[in-house]
Amino acid sequence: MTLQEVREKAKLTIGPHCKVCPECDGRACRGAIPGPGGKGTGLGFIRNYQELKKIRLTMDTIYQSVQVSTEARLFGRTFRLPVFAAPVGAVGLHYSDAYDDLSYSSAVLNGCLRAGSAAFTGDGVKDEVFKGTIEAIKAIGGVGVPTIKPWSVKEVLAKARMAQDAGAFAVGMDIDAAGLAVLAMQGKPVSPMPVEALATIAGSVSMPFILKGIMTAEGARKALKAGAKGIVVSNHGGRVLDETPSSIEVLPAIVEAVGGKMSILIDGGFRTGLDVFKALALGADGVLVGRPFTYAVYGGDEEGVFLTVEKIRAELAEAMVMTGAATLADIDRSKVSYQAEG
Amino acid sequence: MTLQEVREKAKLTIGPHCKVCPECDGRACRGAIPGPGGKGTGLGFIRNYQELKKIRLTMDTIYQSVQVSTEARLFGRTFRLPVFAAPVGAVGLHYSDAYDDLSYSSAVLNGCLRAGSAAFTGDGVKDEVFKGTIEAIKAIGGVGVPTIKPWSVKEVLAKARMAQDAGAFAVGMDIDAAGLAVLAMQGKPVSPMPVEALATIAGSVSMPFILKGIMTAEGARKALKAGAKGIVVSNHGGRVLDETPSSIEVLPAIVEAVGGKMSILIDGGFRTGLDVFKALALGADGVLVGRPFTYAVYGGDEEGVFLTVEKIRAELAEAMVMTGAATLADIDRSKVSYQAEG
Amino acid sequence: MTLQEVREKAKLTIGPHCKVCPECDGRACRGAIPGPGGKGTGLGFIRNYQELKKIRLTMDTIYQSVQVSTEARLFGRTFRLPVFAAPVGAVGLHYSDAYDDLSYSSAVLNGCLRAGSAAFTGDGVKDEVFKGTIEAIKAIGGVGVPTIKPWSVKEVLAKARMAQDAGAFAVGMDIDAAGLAVLAMQGKPVSPMPVEALATIAGSVSMPFILKGIMTAEGARKALKAGAKGIVVSNHGGRVLDETPSSIEVLPAIVEAVGGKMSILIDGGFRTGLDVFKALALGADGVLVGRPFTYAVYGGDEEGVFLTVEKIRAELAEAMVMTGAATLADIDRSKVSYQAEG
Amino acid sequence: MTLQEVREKAKLTIGPHCKVCPECDGRACRGAIPGPGGKGTGLGFIRNYQELKKIRLTMDTIYQSVQVSTEARLFGRTFRLPVFAAPVGAVGLHYSDAYDDLSYSSAVLNGCLRAGSAAFTGDGVKDEVFKGTIEAIKAIGGVGVPTIKPWSVKEVLAKARMAQDAGAFAVGMDIDAAGLAVLAMQGKPVSPMPVEALATIAGSVSMPFILKGIMTAEGARKALKAGAKGIVVSNHGGRVLDETPSSIEVLPAIVEAVGGKMSILIDGGFRTGLDVFKALALGADGVLVGRPFTYAVYGGDEEGVFLTVEKIRAELAEAMVMTGAATLADIDRSKVSYQAEG
Repeated sequence: MTLQEVREKAKLTIGPHCKVCPECDGRACRGAIPGPGGKGTGLGFIRNYQELKKIRLTMDTIYQSVQVSTEARLFGRTFRLPVFAAPVGAVGLHYSDAYDDLSYSSAVLNGCLRAGSAAFTGDGVKDEVFKGTIEAIKAIGGVGVPTIKPWSVKEVLAKARMAQDAGAFAVGMDIDAAGLAVLAMQGKPVSPMPVEALATIAGSVSMPFILKGIMTAEGARKALKAGAKGIVVSNHGGRVLDETPSSIEVLPAIVEAVGGKMSILIDGGFRTGLDVFKALALGADGVLVGRPFTYAVYGGDEEGVFLTVEKIRAELAEAMVMTGAATLADIDRSKVSYQAEG
Repeated sequence: MTLQEVREKAKLTIGPHCKVCPECDGRACRGAIPGPGGKGTGLGFIRNYQELKKIRLTMDTIYQSVQVSTEARLFGRTFRLPVFAAPVGAVGLHYSDAYDDLSYSSAVLNGCLRAGSAAFTGDGVKDEVFKGTIEAIKAIGGVGVPTIKPWSVKEVLAKARMAQDAGAFAVGMDIDAAGLAVLAMQGKPVSPMPVEALATIAGSVSMPFILKGIMTAEGARKALKAGAKGIVVSNHGGRVLDETPSSIEVLPAIVEAVGGKMSILIDGGFRTGLDVFKALALGADGVLVGRPFTYAVYGGDEEGVFLTVEKIRAELAEAMVMTGAATLADIDRSKVSYQAEG
Repeated sequence: MTLQEVREKAKLTIGPHCKVCPECDGRACRGAIPGPGGKGTGLGFIRNYQELKKIRLTMDTIYQSVQVSTEARLFGRTFRLPVFAAPVGAVGLHYSDAYDDLSYSSAVLNGCLRAGSAAFTGDGVKDEVFKGTIEAIKAIGGVGVPTIKPWSVKEVLAKARMAQDAGAFAVGMDIDAAGLAVLAMQGKPVSPMPVEALATIAGSVSMPFILKGIMTAEGARKALKAGAKGIVVSNHGGRVLDETPSSIEVLPAIVEAVGGKMSILIDGGFRTGLDVFKALALGADGVLVGRPFTYAVYGGDEEGVFLTVEKIRAELAEAMVMTGAATLADIDRSKVSYQAEG
Repeated sequence: MTLQEVREKAKLTIGPHCKVCPECDGRACRGAIPGPGGKGTGLGFIRNYQELKKIRLTMDTIYQSVQVSTEARLFGRTFRLPVFAAPVGAVGLHYSDAYDDLSYSSAVLNGCLRAGSAAFTGDGVKDEVFKGTIEAIKAIGGVGVPTIKPWSVKEVLAKARMAQDAGAFAVGMDIDAAGLAVLAMQGKPVSPMPVEALATIAGSVSMPFILKGIMTAEGARKALKAGAKGIVVSNHGGRVLDETPSSIEVLPAIVEAVGGKMSILIDGGFRTGLDVFKALALGADGVLVGRPFTYAVYGGDEEGVFLTVEKIRAELAEAMVMTGAATLADIDRSKVSYQAEG
């Protein structure tokens, strides 16, 4: 199976909303919810992609060649590369019923595991989703990050404990899902949460707690204060609030605020190992990749996921060779040029 | 009735010039007068829309959730949100004869009233238009702002008195209508007016006088000196002079000049509650929305207007939730990022 | 006859190269020589148009209304507006044989005269062209500016004397025509000229000498030193050298260098009275308009020219009303906002 | 034969990947490898072209006209213009089998020689390619620059000696070919090389050693330290690493670092003599032109190459006339305006 075959098959199975575009840039699907698009004008998604394209790699091949290592140590574990599958939920609604949230999670968890990566998995209105995913994570020795929505503190605590019991190496919360009005309509309201509530949650589990959906230095400081061990800089792919900045352009200020004090992951528009390289150069510790795994799963299940991670790893390694970086620690600000939007 | 149905019906009734575009951005109708377009190249309209799209919202959902209030106090009254219908005139000419200025005003006045907002209404060459509108405002207890064109001082004074007698909570003048050469051609010349004349007008009525069509800090200072209680930062939707700046990009300098000393409203390209949020963040006290009400009326009459206000209010409230603003006072400069054109 | 009819007729008569586009911006005809296009990539022409579009007008209608005057005093004469027809040559080649250089010159000279403006006329490889044009200028009392190509000094002196004998109120030279290789191929070489040669020419006639094709402050200083009473800031519509800056973006530096010491005219992409207003606001004393007169002549002869000047004058007057400028002297830098390319 | 005929014929013979576009800007072929495109998104190629278009020429024709000379002295030789054919390899794969690497090299070597220029020639997986090219260079008195890939030092030394024996006036290495994974797949790995290894190579031959693929000031300093007499600022036409800067935008920093201490050539997106002029104005000593020679050869063999060089020379000379540069030394920073991307 090749990635080209995966894409071709995905076009047949992924449903009416996603077009499996040659450039997955948020244009064809803008405003398509249900579907994979950004909300409203779609600018949250589109800007993620476009802003990444402004960052350029500093090529220099005059140096003593060594074997490149993409290995990353994060949250007490070693990964083959600092790239993870982002949580994706309600796939039956946004894509097609060829998969449901459980079978989708299973495919990304196993594919990522095999490739030396790991998957973040999603949460849903129905309890079976989270439960089933937790079991899948348990079955592979805890190599996955269950990501809980900002329900009531009580419910979050219960789910965090389930994650801990399953041996998950970390547990996440997408705090920006507070903007998903559709959840309240289904009788399961979500809401913003203060530092105190987050601290209670972080303190209730023994493994690292990761807050996803941070877009400001102040937000990052609050996450740190709450005891989070990591954050994901993210605008939720443009799906919870229209017209936000791209995640990459707010990264530098966040790195300045909390860099070195917690792990900083990022998602939004990342497609290639070169994109991953850019985020690392700007100070991120790792990257979550979202939509590319949707067509990977719909077109190739676990194998599609594995091939996608492999491709990204090869691209990252190549970028390191061409810029003279032997390890991730060598990928610093000097390796890219970038003028942020503002 | 849904807004989608309103739009579909509007396409059938609104006439040949307006295309009810998915993005109402001034491109399809550029130069179309009669019609809804901007004058000449249409850049006055187009820039309004484009410049608003450059402003980005600062997302942060780590805070103690509270009930959001979009309530605004302006001109001695409380509104459910700081959004008003902009005056639109000669609808029979620019759109279709499914409506005339009286039936149009009636629809926006009543729809806005019901939604907790209020409408600015227009003026015309024929006296019946203003007279009829005044009666409609009187019938709903004065919840509307008659907007007088810059005719002779004598005529303006007479009309302002009519507005006062009808109990209108404010009276406006679109001073930039001085550029409407078409009025002179119909025997009713308009012209620029000095501070002194405006002061006479402002001093002749007991309710607030609002000057619409301010595009510079100096113009705002003159309006203040004339005794106006409010201004509308506006390039008249690009219809009185081609190639002006957008209204949003001149807002910050105007806020610096007169902010806190008078109420600052703005119009030009505002479509969603997110757009409203941006103006408030840059220092405006309220927003006038124009063209969206034209298809609201042609497609849904009073109900279409009501639904449009409701949609904008919901979007504004959602933006407040996602940025951590409980009241309008919390929407400050830190809630957006923006680099003005120049 | 209306300008719309003029345009419609021009489409039938103007030949295969010019498309009489709704926006005459140099795109459809890029690289079309023969034809009206800019050389090579066409960027010289295209940039002229685009850069003008970046300049925005400062609207303010709060002031005591007075009668606007567009009257300009230049080169010892009073014109109804500071706008002139630019010299256009070889019209039979670049447009169609419905006109030749003599009949074309006659139409612009007479149309401009009637509208209170004046035309610059061109020069050609064949002596009859210049001779005939001179006679036409003489016939209307010298209200035209013969523009000589940079041939040998001897030939230029002879032609300048012919212009003087005809009573022309000024005489010009398009020094940038040194780039027209096509002339050398026809046995009439042109070349750059030093200050000394230009001083000889300027000193040989009693009326003002105008150098056209200045694009730098240094070039303007040299023109001043040569005794020129005026310059035309111009990249020759992008037709002598590809990839130059636009004329408008180099204007401010030139104004700073020689403003007040000589008359500064400009051409390149000017279409409307608003465009004229922009150049005046940036310090120009007058504007030459080129291509719009080609479709004016081909579609309406002298009458088309007259209507075109009238339209530009009305637009200029309207811009003055909307910005509070009573005379040309009031159109200063505060009346526009502009960020030049660099 | 005209260049227009060359282009027409090339369209028939050049194969399926190259479209011989009117503007050879890297868009139609983006990602096309095999083919002439840039890798991945194609941005490396596309940016080269676009960034050059941002540089504008400073026109001034007021000066004493002299005969322009485009003559350049480089690497101990005098060339009619400072423009060379860039090395292109595997033409049978990327274009069509109407040519192979030997016949292609022969055409560019001879065409360039005749036009007073010289060609850089490529290297390949099979030894016959390099060997054959060397013989072709020997046959024309050494007027060519064999360009060796970064194989093992031993192999490079052997090939450099072959170049020296053939009398080549210089020998090059495209150090950035370290990114061509396809070579390793064919059993001939390439890799980055440290300064020491490059110094060994440079020291092993008597003629100048030129390092191609420098994109940073630091890389240029290392090349200088290694004893290279020249560098080619190049991103390999976007074919070894995606998303690099354009070569022209990194040129100024490189000139500042090593200008005057070694010869600085550049390639990437150069199409016309005006493009060459821009690089010289920014401090380059010469320019390599790549893709235009591919359609020159496929459409006109040696004669197509000759005509292409002649065209570029005429354009360069014309730009010099229009900006007042008599020799290449006169083409300095004042002759262009440019704001680099970052």
